[in-house]
Amino acid sequence: MKLTLSRRTERLTSSLIRDILQITQRPGVISFAGGLPAEELMPSLNFAECATESRQYGPSEGETTLRELIARGLSTLGLASTAEHVLVTSGSQQGIDLVGKLFIDEGTPVLLESPTYLAALQCFRVYGSEFYGLPLYSNGIDPDELKAAIVCHRPAFVYLIPSFQNPSGCCYSDEVRRAVAAVLDETETPLVEDDPYRDLVYAPCERTPVCAYLERAPWVYLGSFSKITAPGLRVGYLASSPALFPWFVRLKQSSDLHTSRIGQNWLARFIASDTFEHHLAHMNHVYAERRNTMQAALQLRFEGIAEWRAPAGGLFFWLRLTRDIDTLALLKTALNHDVAFMPGEPFFPVPDLRYPSLRLNFSHATPEKIDRGIAMLSDVLSECIEQATLNPRIRVG
Amino acid sequence: MKLTLSRRTERLTSSLIRDILQITQRPGVISFAGGLPAEELMPSLNFAECATESRQYGPSEGETTLRELIARGLSTLGLASTAEHVLVTSGSQQGIDLVGKLFIDEGTPVLLESPTYLAALQCFRVYGSEFYGLPLYSNGIDPDELKAAIVCHRPAFVYLIPSFQNPSGCCYSDEVRRAVAAVLDETETPLVEDDPYRDLVYAPCERTPVCAYLERAPWVYLGSFSKITAPGLRVGYLASSPALFPWFVRLKQSSDLHTSRIGQNWLARFIASDTFEHHLAHMNHVYAERRNTMQAALQLRFEGIAEWRAPAGGLFFWLRLTRDIDTLALLKTALNHDVAFMPGEPFFPVPDLRYPSLRLNFSHATPEKIDRGIAMLSDVLSECIEQATLNPRIRVG
Repeated sequence: MKLTLSRRTERLTSSLIRDILQITQRPGVISFAGGLPAEELMPSLNFAECATESRQYGPSEGETTLRELIARGLSTLGLASTAEHVLVTSGSQQGIDLVGKLFIDEGTPVLLESPTYLAALQCFRVYGSEFYGLPLYSNGIDPDELKAAIVCHRPAFVYLIPSFQNPSGCCYSDEVRRAVAAVLDETETPLVEDDPYRDLVYAPCERTPVCAYLERAPWVYLGSFSKITAPGLRVGYLASSPALFPWFVRLKQSSDLHTSRIGQNWLARFIASDTFEHHLAHMNHVYAERRNTMQAALQLRFEGIAEWRAPAGGLFFWLRLTRDIDTLALLKTALNHDVAFMPGEPFFPVPDLRYPSLRLNFSHATPEKIDRGIAMLSDVLSECIEQATLNPRIRVG
Repeated sequence: MKLTLSRRTERLTSSLIRDILQITQRPGVISFAGGLPAEELMPSLNFAECATESRQYGPSEGETTLRELIARGLSTLGLASTAEHVLVTSGSQQGIDLVGKLFIDEGTPVLLESPTYLAALQCFRVYGSEFYGLPLYSNGIDPDELKAAIVCHRPAFVYLIPSFQNPSGCCYSDEVRRAVAAVLDETETPLVEDDPYRDLVYAPCERTPVCAYLERAPWVYLGSFSKITAPGLRVGYLASSPALFPWFVRLKQSSDLHTSRIGQNWLARFIASDTFEHHLAHMNHVYAERRNTMQAALQLRFEGIAEWRAPAGGLFFWLRLTRDIDTLALLKTALNHDVAFMPGEPFFPVPDLRYPSLRLNFSHATPEKIDRGIAMLSDVLSECIEQATLNPRIRVG
């Protein structure tokens, strides 16, 4: 069969997230693999008031009321915004895809944190980007390393997740945020700031978007409603500096005309209601409990085997193992024991084999399941370590 | 400001449809410009039964029940299908975008009808395709011309809208459908068949998808719920030959993870209900009336000034003017008189200046407004013809 596909398809690797999520949906599996919000905490959806107005085609930019509320929220967070430069997207993932479409040709250099969000890597890779990784430290990336990398690689943009980073949980300090902004301004390098976890906070920390500190560099800010309401609605947004905005609107129109109106109109009502703040507070309360449960379980079971920090927000623990373990083999064994996690390797823009790592989600499982799952995982890991000691792999990294 | 965008952006022209739709939303304008279904015919949306199940993340392929119903519908239409090779998309526009992503690199040749759907041209152009047009005759394209063009240009795929084509209203005869399929099979050229209007039928005619006649050529079939239910929900679908399907799922995941579940779950209930057939019959009855009203108004006002055929289905009349008129200037004047239409020029993959043309939508305006709007348009046109006679343009085409 004659079939000429785009060169893009050569870079389209199967999604590990996708394959694993399918396995973990098997009944009985305790999954720390995905990034799923807890169903029992999601608001109940009542569309009665907005069904009729949501039927006809709508504007590509999104529903006016929702855009205004988003702009107001961003301004409160420190990023002065107007509805005029807010675009509603079909989930934050579409924002990432539009960024790829706007900036990336084959060979376009892109700077990102190492590790970083797997689905962003996959999406940018499809458009043909060349990745250069910035090491993550406890308070963010190193501004000097950022500057050196910009000068050396001349990236089309820098993609950062400064608050409760996925997968590492890292939250940039105020000092680093300002220093990063200064480097981007000085080099006039566009910033793409992905901020889907900012409202899931369990300990006091700085959350002002880095975009808010920019004076000259172009910027794109990606936001999401998936983690705090109902991801099935697929509503996210982007805001950008004025020069970039018209491009995004055209690319959005060419991608799917506009985002489903029913989710937008429901969200506009929900986030403007008194219920919203209570809902957020309750969600944060429950997630903080689950985080604490996982932290206690890890301290009990993983001391000496792994290193980690309890995240101040977001959805994940990031464990670096102190022993050289093949995490894909570990995952297979774990799934045989009905427990799942995400291997860390695919989160690295360029392979980093020095530290095997695991990402563990704590929002979806109940505390009781978290306890049981972590115990099971530590048993499986001990077994693997024992085998590895008997049959050592040749170290690559 | 330093800003390196992708080469893609150089091909991203402003959307005439978009700009015009904005103007035509001005109160008081009678618009024949868009392709909007009539609000008063849209089903009422009741999400009470499916709200809860729609909250969590869902599968990239779409909701299982909806995919099964879609496959059953396609099989009834003659295109034997299973849910396994049906992908739910965020509107049919996303199907077009995924086709572009899958097949098109810079310079990739694509064959399409001339004229064809404007937003498909814009979308494919963004990915860098080279267009080659196939003239449309009253019963479809010419299979011999198709074969010659395939041999000459070696397109990555052929994009066709065989039923109630946008903008021309053309519906391929059974003979042409079979002959086109034979040419595609013989040359093993992929077919992308766009079929959003198939359920809007006002006169008996052949509607079996050309894909149904293919035996060897790869194919993609794009379907829509926008024209027959509520476009604001943004739910469409694609079905494809098995070899192409896994690519589409991965590209879909990378584009927006999955389509909003609430619209999918409501649609699955609605199209499985007894109401659906009645709804379709009523919609077709009302649209047939509007089509007849427009046909009568055109016969009264446009005889001698334009040539057209009453379409057997779909949403549009396509008028070729017998005089050389600048349709963009005509549109400006028309808007001053509160009536809007779509100029035909942007629908041509390669410029064709021989016949100025207009596309007129008949689904959105009431019969009374259709009468009034066509009368106004004929006055405006007469005025323009008079001026053109006084100040003739130099002919280009």
